[in-house]
Amino acid sequence: MTLLQAINDPAELRRLKPEQLNLLAEELRQFLLESVSRSGGHLSSNLGTVELTIALHYVFDTPRDRLVWDVGHQTYGHKVLTGRRERMHTLRQWQGISGFPRRSESPYDTFGTAHSSTSISAALGMARAARLKGENWRTIAVIGDGAMSAGMAFEALNNAGVQQDVNLLVILNDNDMSISPPVGALNRYLARLMSGRFYAAAKDVGNSMLPGPVRALARRLTEHAKGFVVPPATMFEEFGFNYVGPIDGHDLDSLIPTLENLRELKGPQFLHVVTRKGQGYKLAEADPILYHGTGKFDPAEGILPAVAKTTYTEVFGNWLCDMAAIDERLVGITPAMREGSGLVRFEQMFPERYFDVGIAEQHAVTFGAGLATEGMKPVVAIYSTFLQRAYDQLIHDVALQNLDVTFALDRAGLVGADGATHAGNYDIAFVRCIPNMVLMAASDENECRRMLTTAYRYPGPAAVRYPRGAGPGVAIEPALSTVPFGKGEIRRQGKGLAILAFGPMVAPSVAAGAELGATVANMRFIKPLDVELVTQLAREHDQLVTVEEGSVMGGAGAAVAEALAAAGIVKPLLMLGLPDVFIQHGDPALLLSSVGLDAKGIAASIRRCFGAAEPRLVVNNS
Amino acid sequence: MTLLQAINDPAELRRLKPEQLNLLAEELRQFLLESVSRSGGHLSSNLGTVELTIALHYVFDTPRDRLVWDVGHQTYGHKVLTGRRERMHTLRQWQGISGFPRRSESPYDTFGTAHSSTSISAALGMARAARLKGENWRTIAVIGDGAMSAGMAFEALNNAGVQQDVNLLVILNDNDMSISPPVGALNRYLARLMSGRFYAAAKDVGNSMLPGPVRALARRLTEHAKGFVVPPATMFEEFGFNYVGPIDGHDLDSLIPTLENLRELKGPQFLHVVTRKGQGYKLAEADPILYHGTGKFDPAEGILPAVAKTTYTEVFGNWLCDMAAIDERLVGITPAMREGSGLVRFEQMFPERYFDVGIAEQHAVTFGAGLATEGMKPVVAIYSTFLQRAYDQLIHDVALQNLDVTFALDRAGLVGADGATHAGNYDIAFVRCIPNMVLMAASDENECRRMLTTAYRYPGPAAVRYPRGAGPGVAIEPALSTVPFGKGEIRRQGKGLAILAFGPMVAPSVAAGAELGATVANMRFIKPLDVELVTQLAREHDQLVTVEEGSVMGGAGAAVAEALAAAGIVKPLLMLGLPDVFIQHGDPALLLSSVGLDAKGIAASIRRCFGAAEPRLVVNNS
Repeated sequence: MTLLQAINDPAELRRLKPEQLNLLAEELRQFLLESVSRSGGHLSSNLGTVELTIALHYVFDTPRDRLVWDVGHQTYGHKVLTGRRERMHTLRQWQGISGFPRRSESPYDTFGTAHSSTSISAALGMARAARLKGENWRTIAVIGDGAMSAGMAFEALNNAGVQQDVNLLVILNDNDMSISPPVGALNRYLARLMSGRFYAAAKDVGNSMLPGPVRALARRLTEHAKGFVVPPATMFEEFGFNYVGPIDGHDLDSLIPTLENLRELKGPQFLHVVTRKGQGYKLAEADPILYHGTGKFDPAEGILPAVAKTTYTEVFGNWLCDMAAIDERLVGITPAMREGSGLVRFEQMFPERYFDVGIAEQHAVTFGAGLATEGMKPVVAIYSTFLQRAYDQLIHDVALQNLDVTFALDRAGLVGADGATHAGNYDIAFVRCIPNMVLMAASDENECRRMLTTAYRYPGPAAVRYPRGAGPGVAIEPALSTVPFGKGEIRRQGKGLAILAFGPMVAPSVAAGAELGATVANMRFIKPLDVELVTQLAREHDQLVTVEEGSVMGGAGAAVAEALAAAGIVKPLLMLGLPDVFIQHGDPALLLSSVGLDAKGIAASIRRCFGAAEPRLVVNNS
Repeated sequence: MTLLQAINDPAELRRLKPEQLNLLAEELRQFLLESVSRSGGHLSSNLGTVELTIALHYVFDTPRDRLVWDVGHQTYGHKVLTGRRERMHTLRQWQGISGFPRRSESPYDTFGTAHSSTSISAALGMARAARLKGENWRTIAVIGDGAMSAGMAFEALNNAGVQQDVNLLVILNDNDMSISPPVGALNRYLARLMSGRFYAAAKDVGNSMLPGPVRALARRLTEHAKGFVVPPATMFEEFGFNYVGPIDGHDLDSLIPTLENLRELKGPQFLHVVTRKGQGYKLAEADPILYHGTGKFDPAEGILPAVAKTTYTEVFGNWLCDMAAIDERLVGITPAMREGSGLVRFEQMFPERYFDVGIAEQHAVTFGAGLATEGMKPVVAIYSTFLQRAYDQLIHDVALQNLDVTFALDRAGLVGADGATHAGNYDIAFVRCIPNMVLMAASDENECRRMLTTAYRYPGPAAVRYPRGAGPGVAIEPALSTVPFGKGEIRRQGKGLAILAFGPMVAPSVAAGAELGATVANMRFIKPLDVELVTQLAREHDQLVTVEEGSVMGGAGAAVAEALAAAGIVKPLLMLGLPDVFIQHGDPALLLSSVGLDAKGIAASIRRCFGAAEPRLVVNNS
């Protein structure tokens, strides 16, 4: 039996001797590698935090002490050590454990994280609650250097710095790599902290702290007395934190005594830990981006090039390069999602027009707005779920001024294994209510390309939403053609019933329509809605059905209902789409089927609503 | 003729001799005081930026050089000097000039601002565009110390610091007071910069720069060569900016040569200017918060205490104190809107449970989420328009975890003089699509109090929206009673037609309903909608009308349409609410009337839609 197999609870971990922890780290790292290679998931970040995870649970009294993991994709080791080892094979699968911390999953998951940079705010709230309740547990936020570049983390630091009575420890896990390479001034600053005199001085502190916290404290006080001279205060000290570090985050002999010392100090503490993504697995160390999020693979062979169907992300990436080649006004902007949004080739071809602004969605959008005021043509590549971070900027800076910014909304709709935190279910509702906005939903790869061109050519703010993963496999024309603005198209003529389908719901709707003998329209535009087509379909049919991969509440179906009401048309209407619940992680096809958004489910819902019209033709699902 | 009267364009300003500028500043300050005392508007911030405004237009070649004013309420002097002097009496009035910069109003208004902290992002976009186009004009962002505390400004600094080839000047207008007193670590840091050795050193630099930029540059290079020793680099230098300051922002003899020098430097520049809000008007200097935003007043007498009707903001403030008195778990949170959100008395009574987190909406919401995980009962007081800044936090941190956070959404609906930038028109659409959320709309003061209690007692995320200003004048019960959860009420029984009214639209709907002989329901809950009442009203009436003070797209009317569709009810439906356009500033009653949301307009729309039912009873509008 290994050490790891004996640990079903951090209390058991805490019974180990310090000298056993290196072996445990080795076992945990091996377990994670094997586990992720079988389940898929995040690898590099979890290999990088093995020692930190062990040290935190070893030193702190979890779950009484609260541990908040920023972004949360680095919590696999935490899950293994907190009683979920045997369930790791279900990771990110339907009804399995989540790839992120979830409060409902474990008392050790104190705060659900997945979007970046929330941890300090949440931890400060907890630490404040401890003070208000007169309790004396500690709160620890672990945040990466990439996440630290988001404004929200800065807001939290700014506020924490004036709450000197809280017992809050912020651990900066500096691995010098968010998903894309680091890009901002903060990263450069952290690199200076690490490589310069600070590093030497701090290593010294790390060692001198071994005997106890007093000496370190004394040393710090001396520094302060010298009036910022040697070494000057770090930015974190200017914000009111006691700064310690950088220390080697893979060295348990540094980590544990440093954490033990910090545990005893009052007020906001800041520990700068340096780790390497992929640590201990040569292939991941060499290419941490490739091993950031993986499917299943053989640990001995590593990840092999896949022969996959073209994804919508690739369609976008190729379109962006093609459009940039003929229009030098085009500028591509990503908030730290170069790989995820398909901008790798664009950066190589047009480095001077490529801007990775860091995990900074707010800035990304308004930076684009500024470019647009000067006649440039910015394209903001952003996941639907992350546009939520820039909602005010979309309204106040872009749409209100009717600026010509194009939004490529990737991962719209259900996202599968990432689950509810990353769901792109709300963009239809939250974009549609904004005046001046144009919003399209792509039903296949080629239409996606044409819609991107349409959005780009439109001289105001326009967004194209497309789902995660591969489309139906439609051939992509090399031309940069558009779709008719504001117009849908009839895909299948039937009678009695008309299905108004949006985006990826067109294909299953056509299949359902064939089964039911219904007319099926690919509506293409959510805003402006093709009111002419809606009224025509209403006139020519007895019943209408809308189908969308988005929240029914306020969604495209609601748009159709509004249009019918405005036109004074009274007609039976069935709205199909995502229900008003947070949908958890799982296989995308299974999830769609579970909410009735495959061809079979659509046909069944229609029959249920409008009675037992006999199937006129049975077809395979397209 | 005064100097000011001769200036209709900054080119004319630039023809003045430097020694004339102090007189011009005096005239401009006097003009602004008189103008604002007659029109109402922002006073303190405009008096504080008189010299800075003159200096900027004097030194820079506006509008060729781009000037971006953060928040933009300090641009009255800018408007006066850029050809809008004669229109200042129309400020913030219907079809008059805006209280904020507007691109459609003047080529000198390069970017519309009103929400805080957007200027650096926008200016960086412009500066980048200049580089891409090979043009050599300058971009200047002017941002207050309060606005600097928002994460978005940090994101922009972080990104600007690695764009060393842009000609961007960021001017920090440090007046040590956002609307509420400054609260964050950044403010404390700036105060140290100001009061400590930096100040002396910088004043020295300011003077020594008079002969030319070379000496200053040399001095800076020397400092860098010394390796951070004397004086240590400021935070802004760590971010890649060349930092100059602090200098006295009321001293034109410092401002002008400093700006002239900075104009010649390449790369990101940062100028720290210290000003005083209300400068030159004793009453405003003494109480800059009172004179932040004013109605009309006599400059000689100052602002007199008004005997006004109780506002919804006061209803909330009183409720908060009453609830806090009986529940020690209550924590009040404001993102820098102590006065605007009615928290002054709460802070006095419960200082340990009052948190002004700075202009940091994202942090405010997630800080609340953290508190809620520990059993505290956070109440986030936030304007509808500013909740847009925390949209992702509302979804990802609060609603997804079903945390017990109460939101008091002030300024929901049209806001009057502040105009489109501050419109609270979208919250119904963007909150309604989020699972787990509860959303109520208050129709009068007492109902607002009861709804706040209802939201507070509800053990999950719940929001109450209420409009700006005073309600109908309903007496407020001292008790902390609730409204029945998820239930509307029939306010008037009629027949044929049923009006389903939300929030402040209940009163005009009751009047319209009386005129039309219609049933009128106060729906109270937008989510969960009272589906039982909707279906009952649909059964008992021939036609349904929804009325809301919010965007029709995705709004409460759409909720009713969805409910009818889900229930299989086919019934004529008219949806009244705010149209899909940005509605400009003006008198609130006039604006409501212009979009047909007064009693007369509602009745007229209903008649237009459902034919000429004879008025059964003519009543005065309530």
